[in-house]
Amino acid sequence: MEKSAQEWLRGATFKEVLGSDASHKSLFVLVEHANGEKGVLLMNKSAFSEKAEDISAIIKSADLTEIMKNDIYGNYDIAIPSNLNLVKSQLIYPANDKVIAKYRQEEKFVIRETAEDYRTITVEYIEKYQMDLKWVYNVLSKNKEADRIIYEDPDPYNGFILAPDIKWDGVTMENLYVLAMIHRRGVRSIRDLTADDLPMLENIRSRSLVTIREKYGVRPDQIRAYFHYQPSFFHLHVHFVSLKYDAPASTTLSAVLLDDVINNLQLVPDYYKKSTLTFTRKASDKLLEMFREAGRCEK
Amino acid sequence: MEKSAQEWLRGATFKEVLGSDASHKSLFVLVEHANGEKGVLLMNKSAFSEKAEDISAIIKSADLTEIMKNDIYGNYDIAIPSNLNLVKSQLIYPANDKVIAKYRQEEKFVIRETAEDYRTITVEYIEKYQMDLKWVYNVLSKNKEADRIIYEDPDPYNGFILAPDIKWDGVTMENLYVLAMIHRRGVRSIRDLTADDLPMLENIRSRSLVTIREKYGVRPDQIRAYFHYQPSFFHLHVHFVSLKYDAPASTTLSAVLLDDVINNLQLVPDYYKKSTLTFTRKASDKLLEMFREAGRCEK
Repeated sequence: MEKSAQEWLRGATFKEVLGSDASHKSLFVLVEHANGEKGVLLMNKSAFSEKAEDISAIIKSADLTEIMKNDIYGNYDIAIPSNLNLVKSQLIYPANDKVIAKYRQEEKFVIRETAEDYRTITVEYIEKYQMDLKWVYNVLSKNKEADRIIYEDPDPYNGFILAPDIKWDGVTMENLYVLAMIHRRGVRSIRDLTADDLPMLENIRSRSLVTIREKYGVRPDQIRAYFHYQPSFFHLHVHFVSLKYDAPASTTLSAVLLDDVINNLQLVPDYYKKSTLTFTRKASDKLLEMFREAGRCEK
Repeated sequence: MEKSAQEWLRGATFKEVLGSDASHKSLFVLVEHANGEKGVLLMNKSAFSEKAEDISAIIKSADLTEIMKNDIYGNYDIAIPSNLNLVKSQLIYPANDKVIAKYRQEEKFVIRETAEDYRTITVEYIEKYQMDLKWVYNVLSKNKEADRIIYEDPDPYNGFILAPDIKWDGVTMENLYVLAMIHRRGVRSIRDLTADDLPMLENIRSRSLVTIREKYGVRPDQIRAYFHYQPSFFHLHVHFVSLKYDAPASTTLSAVLLDDVINNLQLVPDYYKKSTLTFTRKASDKLLEMFREAGRCEK
């Protein structure tokens, strides 16, 4: 009979920390069962409930240990009942080496990509290793996920489709996450954009913000709109995300604001053909390896 | 006799959620004691300990509730003993209205500041409301905190001082946070920079990264270097922060990479005199109010 996860975990011992994030309070660990099977335990502290009865229960049951007190300010460690303080977790077992590698946290490295680096290194990387774009073309031709589309400008050159990102539930407005994908093929990233693309970019910005307001009631000044650079797939798309949501890779060295791209192309028509763009890549990343082989990054 | 915090909190009831952050797992609440005093309770879930014995204790005592299971992947809520899952907190009591207002979370709004907006709105804001810079001049003239300086280029025009930020303990390399402040007065923010300032900016970049490597052993490709726009004080300074640290306001709409500023000024000598810069401000912010009064932001 299959062992329950509870039973399996009780028979397992801690082997190694695969990764941790002190800001978001998560920890990924490798464990090994007495039978030799390995497992990956991903733990993530839960957000506080905002329900009045849960908060009242915490206040009533809180057990304070004073760290320091100064005038009206005091710092305390608080112990609260474990049912009010659950850890959201995923246990993956048995886990093979590939699964384990996926959750092993890797150091990141800053790359400064000059325009020359882009032409001599990154283009080769894209041609060799870029993901198959069939799924993108399926979405654009409405063979897949057509019911998810919330706006479309069908123009093949300047048009685009707008749809909720698959990671968003479509309901929680704090996590609003909508993706615009252009109809035109062959625009791989912001590197391919010039001032000729300003009508398309301004069209995406204004129509997407209007649609998000109409459909979800979220104002344009509550939205962070950006590209990833490097993107995870090389067909131009724009992320529209609630300001309240601290989305992965929405930060500097990963994201470039749509407003900044429009501003830059207005000032310099071939801005992205001439600029140095700075971003991070993980230790095992192929592009980082190629920059290092070319002597453009420290080993 | 003074009531202990424990006693005070037991006599208090929940009034209102002042703010919450589901990503970082924190909650700020307003409470009121039976005696009429108000208090602010700031709660922040603790990061996981990475000590082997603590992790082993969690694994041994974890109580799993299955949410769903699919093949090798399973999701569970885990209850763990409360002493392994403390909440870091601050209790401020009695708290007056000003203290309460400080912790009340405010919505943020995106502002797109054109070059014209900067000249007609923001400059007036800076002149009226900017913080006194005496503390900055004290640091630069070494009347204060001179022992904290880790590097100085004393040149009055292109020089700067480099020192650990007051929020950093100087020890935990994951949170490395070093600040460069220029010697020259009157450069309020990146808006005042032109290509004439490139020698200063390149000097700050190269000398700071070398110093951080020599003093702390942290490589240049492990550092995120950026300005804030808008800055919190109007004397030009650069943040050098560990890539591993998710520092407040290091993200898009708050931070502008030093590398991007250098690139932009190389391409367009008066880039920051001509550009639209996009950032967020809180609901009660004076600058946002001025943009709204000028009809440049939605009310």
